[in-house]
Amino acid sequence: MKKLMNAPADLVAESVTGLVAAHGDLLTMSAEPLYVTRADAPVAGKVGIVSGGGSGHEPLHAGLVGPGMLDGAVPGPVFTSPSAEPIQAATQAVDGGAGVLHIVKNYTGDVLNFEMAQELAAAEGAEVSSVLVADDVAVEDSTFTAGRRGVAGTLVVEKIAGAAAERGADLAAVTAVAQRAADRVRSMGVALHAPVVPSSGRTSFDLAEDEIEVGIGIHGEPGRHRQAMAGADEITAMLLDPVLADLDLADGAQVLLFVNGMGATTPPELYVVYAAARRLLEARGVQVSRSLVGSYVTSLDMAGASLSVLCLDDELLELWDAPVKTASLRWGM
Amino acid sequence: MKKLMNAPADLVAESVTGLVAAHGDLLTMSAEPLYVTRADAPVAGKVGIVSGGGSGHEPLHAGLVGPGMLDGAVPGPVFTSPSAEPIQAATQAVDGGAGVLHIVKNYTGDVLNFEMAQELAAAEGAEVSSVLVADDVAVEDSTFTAGRRGVAGTLVVEKIAGAAAERGADLAAVTAVAQRAADRVRSMGVALHAPVVPSSGRTSFDLAEDEIEVGIGIHGEPGRHRQAMAGADEITAMLLDPVLADLDLADGAQVLLFVNGMGATTPPELYVVYAAARRLLEARGVQVSRSLVGSYVTSLDMAGASLSVLCLDDELLELWDAPVKTASLRWGM
Repeated sequence: MKKLMNAPADLVAESVTGLVAAHGDLLTMSAEPLYVTRADAPVAGKVGIVSGGGSGHEPLHAGLVGPGMLDGAVPGPVFTSPSAEPIQAATQAVDGGAGVLHIVKNYTGDVLNFEMAQELAAAEGAEVSSVLVADDVAVEDSTFTAGRRGVAGTLVVEKIAGAAAERGADLAAVTAVAQRAADRVRSMGVALHAPVVPSSGRTSFDLAEDEIEVGIGIHGEPGRHRQAMAGADEITAMLLDPVLADLDLADGAQVLLFVNGMGATTPPELYVVYAAARRLLEARGVQVSRSLVGSYVTSLDMAGASLSVLCLDDELLELWDAPVKTASLRWGM
Repeated sequence: MKKLMNAPADLVAESVTGLVAAHGDLLTMSAEPLYVTRADAPVAGKVGIVSGGGSGHEPLHAGLVGPGMLDGAVPGPVFTSPSAEPIQAATQAVDGGAGVLHIVKNYTGDVLNFEMAQELAAAEGAEVSSVLVADDVAVEDSTFTAGRRGVAGTLVVEKIAGAAAERGADLAAVTAVAQRAADRVRSMGVALHAPVVPSSGRTSFDLAEDEIEVGIGIHGEPGRHRQAMAGADEITAMLLDPVLADLDLADGAQVLLFVNGMGATTPPELYVVYAAARRLLEARGVQVSRSLVGSYVTSLDMAGASLSVLCLDDELLELWDAPVKTASLRWGM
């Protein structure tokens, strides 16, 4: 299988270099240890927000660094957690004196390394809190996870936390609203084709020509079941029903509906899924107040999609709408 | 091969419905004949901008409708030009009394149908001009083209024209600056994998496991040559050299560098290509003043990328930087 890269071992560092060069007004980087921050970090008096994890999920996280969202992102090797050292370094680089929030996807490696980085940064005098994202309703434990996996809902938590920090909330308040967003977002995904892993050149799992994996993780971890390919409307219902069962929305609830592409899925397919999900939500009396459709939390070049639903309240709505300026998510600036 | 869709024949209409539902503040649509316009069209006294063509290149064109860019987009069936009727209807729907510019990619079907629509709209009293985009330096004639193909440079022309219209330029001035952008942008692309066509479920051409097609078109039309897979730096030079040979940039020239993904190519790969292209340009004394990296002018789920270079001048730079608010390209609003 083919990738536009030079040596596979250089893919992450070379791509981060390109990202930062393309967005020099917005981003700066440290090459050793590898992390990305806002060009103007640390912002004095503002809570810093740091996320990170294995690469292969782009634009998450480095493409979401900038005013109104993340202050720092720590990209590990493909599908592999970064170690504590770059996380600690990024934490200290964005600490403007008001503390730092870590937003961590629930994978064992990420949890351990962010915890260690938090302790190391605290030993240096930084105040650090953390919020764990575990939005994937597909399975309760998984290949790399105790408890639920953190998937596309992570973007939502990052946006909400970033907006709260930008408007001057303190660390406790930013942490609380990020936790509320994490508590109120649920996701589930499907794979049509496995991704090709750059280091091996092989697919990370195998699906037959007419087979899909329902409830897939973002590293190709097994989902709930495999079955024959079906129409988009049917697949959308299979993803949305477990999400809604878990969220327990009141009649008239307002939600953000986020249809996320896994990497190789075309915009028309994502919008077909969006249209189907919206119809299903409206039929249940749920109001789709905000929408996001695109490939933001990917699994390399996996084909497939995930649905995320965030149950909004007034504050979450206001924070979602707040201006943001990053490489991949931008409005109001 | 699998796609997230219902009946293949419904893919375009269902996806446009989803797009417009997700961006109801920005977009409205006509289902029969099928076209998309700004929600506030026609804008009185403003030149209207319409583009369109076969579907399968999303977000081009409907994802680029909104303030500062297109007023209307006409999506044909996948890889097939829309007929004159929807083009005429979209033209009249966005005509705010200051005339309408058609931006047309150079494919025989698009050229004929836009010409016919222009005549029909003129017969109804509309003033319509047109600019042909033919930025692909790979081949002089092609499967569907007399002369060069119109590819990713189309986005650049649409942005420039849209900004000029938004700031109140008249039809002659908008047409002139769009033509200047078209004259100053050049592109070339590469395919690593062929796209899968929804109606047939088959790839539109075949590449061996270790083979790439250099100079590919956005419908899988043949390029310059096939060869063995190579590293990203080498491939980037193969795309950039013909682009620069054709542009004949002066030393110290300022350019916009646009690295475009063909659909299934991951952001890290695009940024590796971007970093390589930027190094090559700087080594030649060319200044990369603006950058765009992402999958905007796609070929379904083809894997690969294209490079576009626009030779900037002060006015083009100002128009590129002007605010824009569309589903897929947005800044300053």
